[in-house]
Amino acid sequence: MKIRIFNARILTMAENQDIFLGELQVEDGKIIYVGEEKKTDGFWDREIDAKQNLLLPGFKNAHTHSAMTFLRSYADDLPLQEWLYNQVFPMEAKLTPDDVYWCAMLANLEYLTSGITANFDMYMKNESNAKASVDMGFRTVLCGSINNFGGTVEGIEQEYLHFNAYNPLISYQLGFHAEYTTKRETLEAMAALGQKYKAPMYTHNSETADEVAGCVERYGKTPTVFLDAIGMFEYGGGGFHCVHMTQEDLDICKEKGLWVVTNPSSNVKLASGIAPIQKMLSMGIGLAIGTDGPASNNCLDMFREMFLVTALQKVSLKDASAVDALDVLRMACVGGARAMGLSDCDTLEEGKNADVIMIDLQQPNMQPLNNIAKNIVYSGSKQNVKMTMVDGKILYEDGVFHVGVAPEEIYAKANESINRMKNV
Amino acid sequence: MKIRIFNARILTMAENQDIFLGELQVEDGKIIYVGEEKKTDGFWDREIDAKQNLLLPGFKNAHTHSAMTFLRSYADDLPLQEWLYNQVFPMEAKLTPDDVYWCAMLANLEYLTSGITANFDMYMKNESNAKASVDMGFRTVLCGSINNFGGTVEGIEQEYLHFNAYNPLISYQLGFHAEYTTKRETLEAMAALGQKYKAPMYTHNSETADEVAGCVERYGKTPTVFLDAIGMFEYGGGGFHCVHMTQEDLDICKEKGLWVVTNPSSNVKLASGIAPIQKMLSMGIGLAIGTDGPASNNCLDMFREMFLVTALQKVSLKDASAVDALDVLRMACVGGARAMGLSDCDTLEEGKNADVIMIDLQQPNMQPLNNIAKNIVYSGSKQNVKMTMVDGKILYEDGVFHVGVAPEEIYAKANESINRMKNV
Repeated sequence: MKIRIFNARILTMAENQDIFLGELQVEDGKIIYVGEEKKTDGFWDREIDAKQNLLLPGFKNAHTHSAMTFLRSYADDLPLQEWLYNQVFPMEAKLTPDDVYWCAMLANLEYLTSGITANFDMYMKNESNAKASVDMGFRTVLCGSINNFGGTVEGIEQEYLHFNAYNPLISYQLGFHAEYTTKRETLEAMAALGQKYKAPMYTHNSETADEVAGCVERYGKTPTVFLDAIGMFEYGGGGFHCVHMTQEDLDICKEKGLWVVTNPSSNVKLASGIAPIQKMLSMGIGLAIGTDGPASNNCLDMFREMFLVTALQKVSLKDASAVDALDVLRMACVGGARAMGLSDCDTLEEGKNADVIMIDLQQPNMQPLNNIAKNIVYSGSKQNVKMTMVDGKILYEDGVFHVGVAPEEIYAKANESINRMKNV
Repeated sequence: MKIRIFNARILTMAENQDIFLGELQVEDGKIIYVGEEKKTDGFWDREIDAKQNLLLPGFKNAHTHSAMTFLRSYADDLPLQEWLYNQVFPMEAKLTPDDVYWCAMLANLEYLTSGITANFDMYMKNESNAKASVDMGFRTVLCGSINNFGGTVEGIEQEYLHFNAYNPLISYQLGFHAEYTTKRETLEAMAALGQKYKAPMYTHNSETADEVAGCVERYGKTPTVFLDAIGMFEYGGGGFHCVHMTQEDLDICKEKGLWVVTNPSSNVKLASGIAPIQKMLSMGIGLAIGTDGPASNNCLDMFREMFLVTALQKVSLKDASAVDALDVLRMACVGGARAMGLSDCDTLEEGKNADVIMIDLQQPNMQPLNNIAKNIVYSGSKQNVKMTMVDGKILYEDGVFHVGVAPEEIYAKANESINRMKNV
């Protein structure tokens, strides 16, 4: 499949590269040319006039639980513990592999509408999740999620080997659910596994104040300090949420090259707090953005997250100049890719994977064109996503999905799943 | 123009009315039927199969400065004072009536994409703003904005009489910019004017902590207490923002029936703070939602505002159960209408004005259908707005505007305005 997109504004997100007018060409899933020069030679399956709309690297959803779509709007406006223990857990116990397959597909559709080209997914029944993404042509990095309620370290090792050889669209990173849900013996075995494969390690970290207090009570240390002390981060990795972080925690993130994946919508909606993003940025800690799962957020929308990443810093620091829009865009496109181990999906450069989106600038919320990057972060919305391309294939264009299955079938299956579970 | 929309889910927003499947009919700008029964008799200009998508009353943008679109993304990520004095004010001084006309049109287009059917607009050159709305068929309530830098009380009175007889789509409410920008003599004359016409009075109120501190220094009272003491609110009215409110302030709002129009995106982006919405709700104070102007927000999107109204309460009160989604939807549809004096645009009932929107439920972010109201507030986005009808006319449908002027012309004019101003 050879596609040429011409007459485009292009923001490659490579260092110090401004927006320019030019074209981008892809073949067999890779970017083969990006630049100002016209190159029309050769046969093209499609030539697309971008009409000066904007191409940029796809957004990366660096923390989510995709298949939780079945619980969207099922149990909101409840205190956190009631939500989790009385609503979420009992329903999750009823999930079949088939449920996960269709509910992950539903999430993937939504990612496409928001210009998200890859997700970093921590959930159960990974075989179903991987199959959903491969069947649709979507890119997914799975994350281990062992805890006291499910999984074995051997199982995680098998998944690591299995999914990293599964399909080019799928990869797998070592991970566990969280310190507070995982006993010390398991955590130590996970640390050893990471060291065996020289692999980075990912987990929910310091999402709530209670979680941190619990860890301090158990081990006399914050989660970051404790996990680091038992050798969890010898090859890097990252933390999801990282809302309640001490200076020592942040120093460890910096020193070990740990990625912080921030989830602002979920953190405000679940009343967890506001992560110190401005401080992390100023320390040079790597940052990425995630939506968290649809049961908590409830939207899988990078535009909402991008606005909140900066707006919540501004209000919590009482400084309207905190966290520039371009920094946020970098987190969403480049930081996310690198945090997930997708270093070939971070920018629009020759040889990189063709995970590309087109933003419709011919919409009222993108006008006038005073500053396109700020327009995207401050006034962008899903309605501006004109095209989402993953691995060189256009999966979403002008509101129509090209994913090999009708969206209506996916909607019907997701409704069937939740309705069956409600009545069991 | 007679339009029949059938096979629709309908949320009338009338008290205690659940969603039902039925139809809605409009003629000459009014709703002539809404109910479960099929009524196909008679001639229809259009019959629309809603395919079980949702009809609800249009959202009301109860505080904005529409024509400030020219400054969108022009000067973000700056400290508040630098933004206002070095960037906004010098550019505003260069605005022509023509600029305001086209820049207000641009805002109106964006309102339509977000399901907003009316705006409450405080800005300058109201003749241009009113003409832009009438030319497009959009509904606008203008708000007086006198302050020390412009306007006279006689001018406000003339506007009040002029615009309330101008066109059925236009109305006008008495107002002044704010206590901190308006000298006492003018404020007292405005209070007298309100009493002369037995009219409600609107103003920016307690947006920042500094503004409140300044008023206390000047008059020994908070803005709400001071304005009330000089007789400003004898016939009600409302305050925009109302972020920093004392118990006494809230008691006055309750007692005088003052509407609070909250602007959460603007308040976080400009680092102003978080309004105590949960407390206001529990006291029974009337609430409405505004986007504020595009220079500060920068998006004119009711979906983002609705999410933030509840999410910011949850995080600031550390209570995930704060402010139910349905309360938010009521503010956006019903509260807004009543706050602006549009009591005929609040719900979908026979005899009301036909300001109606259709929400596309056949989108991944609206599935599954566990709870449609929560879906709208927590995961809704502009991409879900399938149709926006104002005064019985469909102005936006399936991404296409029907406003008598090409959007491209509006975009070009808005860019011309800002480019000219940059170079003067």
